[in-house]
Amino acid sequence: MSVELADSIAALRTRLAPLRREGKTIGLVPTMGALHAGHIELIRRARRECDCVVVSIFVNPIQFDRNDDFERYPRPVADDMRLCEQEGVDVVFAPGAGEMYPRPQRAFVEVEALTDHLCGKFRPGHFRGVATVVAKLFHIVQPERAYFGEKDVQQLAVIRRMVADLNMPLTIVEVPTVREDDGLAVSSRNVHLNAEQRRSATVLHQALAAAREQVARGQREAAAVRQEGLNVLARQPAVRVEYFDVVDSDEMQPVERIERPVRIAAAVWVGATRLIDNVLVEV
Amino acid sequence: MSVELADSIAALRTRLAPLRREGKTIGLVPTMGALHAGHIELIRRARRECDCVVVSIFVNPIQFDRNDDFERYPRPVADDMRLCEQEGVDVVFAPGAGEMYPRPQRAFVEVEALTDHLCGKFRPGHFRGVATVVAKLFHIVQPERAYFGEKDVQQLAVIRRMVADLNMPLTIVEVPTVREDDGLAVSSRNVHLNAEQRRSATVLHQALAAAREQVARGQREAAAVRQEGLNVLARQPAVRVEYFDVVDSDEMQPVERIERPVRIAAAVWVGATRLIDNVLVEV
Repeated sequence: MSVELADSIAALRTRLAPLRREGKTIGLVPTMGALHAGHIELIRRARRECDCVVVSIFVNPIQFDRNDDFERYPRPVADDMRLCEQEGVDVVFAPGAGEMYPRPQRAFVEVEALTDHLCGKFRPGHFRGVATVVAKLFHIVQPERAYFGEKDVQQLAVIRRMVADLNMPLTIVEVPTVREDDGLAVSSRNVHLNAEQRRSATVLHQALAAAREQVARGQREAAAVRQEGLNVLARQPAVRVEYFDVVDSDEMQPVERIERPVRIAAAVWVGATRLIDNVLVEV
Repeated sequence: MSVELADSIAALRTRLAPLRREGKTIGLVPTMGALHAGHIELIRRARRECDCVVVSIFVNPIQFDRNDDFERYPRPVADDMRLCEQEGVDVVFAPGAGEMYPRPQRAFVEVEALTDHLCGKFRPGHFRGVATVVAKLFHIVQPERAYFGEKDVQQLAVIRRMVADLNMPLTIVEVPTVREDDGLAVSSRNVHLNAEQRRSATVLHQALAAAREQVARGQREAAAVRQEGLNVLARQPAVRVEYFDVVDSDEMQPVERIERPVRIAAAVWVGATRLIDNVLVEV
């Protein structure tokens, strides 16, 4: 059976309404396309758990804080469709910007506090754009379950909190980060790295692993753990650190002492490409 | 058949789930209780149009900008239940504050631009609180239709825009304002007026009617129409004007020339009681 493409909200709703009446479970994998091994994990998990799998592909303009990032974001549509077909996706929802934002957008979902640090500090408006488009997609698809990757840990926390605080009737499923053999987290932006940058980029995961190792050895001072990570990152002068922080897992607030499970999360620039990654650290 | 009371989200969802599976239409009338003739109109309209009518009663703390207003907001629970019973309501959803806000609320729905003027200008955070609790109620009840009164015209515009911009899967039904014989709009806050204040309060509707009459006679300058309203209000020195404005019907922005249908909307204080009202003016 071949994957269906819906490019309008009305077409998608028409397609899903009978399934919903029959009590079928709908799973949503929201993406910006440029599908990679990380997305495939999300899709396979959804395929195992739901009767109908919807993949949305929409490069959401209102979550980009830099226009060059939006412009050069990869959009390999034919490859994405082929991949969805291979993975047994039922429907790809790929609306245009005019379909998602037919008039000036006035209503936004804001998640406070959780967006004050990490990426939220460096990408003003980013999470407002993410929460808003995800709320729109949830209302359009009305899935029982929606799948997100652990790599974007702050995004995941923001969406979980949006769903909880606004009583949205669905379950958020968190899927572990997929990594290359050398530890680099798979990302749509990795295609922008040249061979040398690609080699330097592995230092991000190494730094996070070194920081986690410090905690495993008994270090409880976040400042010392952070310094260890920064020391590792300093070995690659081509890699510029944006942040490297130790935060609590629910509200994404920096901690001083590590006494509960935390996330160590970092963003770095390799040339003009921004990469993020994180590790869960349990104590 | 007697009305059912649900005081938890789980109980309400359990009650509604089988109806939804059977394809029954659910109508929601969101209220803060202290039900009056205006609410009865909403309920009757819902009763005619839906298989199952849910009335929510929740005095929402996060939409009050003044604590004294929240504290003294009337809460005649037994009367409200009796009235719902008489009107054939199926379920009253009356959660406590801890049920609606079990943790610090971090996620909010903000509607920009539409909230800059009228009540939005004088009640900071009010519409954020309204939009947020209404979004929560929509996600909890998942109604096909929700009923709101025209008296709170800015609230109605905000909710319509929230539903449109966030693609919420329901229809907003707008119900005309119910008035006393002398024109005063029915409101839960009218109980706070003593006999003399009650007589003065009629000037609000008179001022709006006089302004509308100016437009009917051909006046197109909003400033002149506004001045006419203010002149009428000035006849009652006990009535203090908060705002009296001519705005466009969709985005609630002040207009200079009246060339399309507008709303003339006003808020006044009579003693410690704030009253609002508005009229639609077509040209």
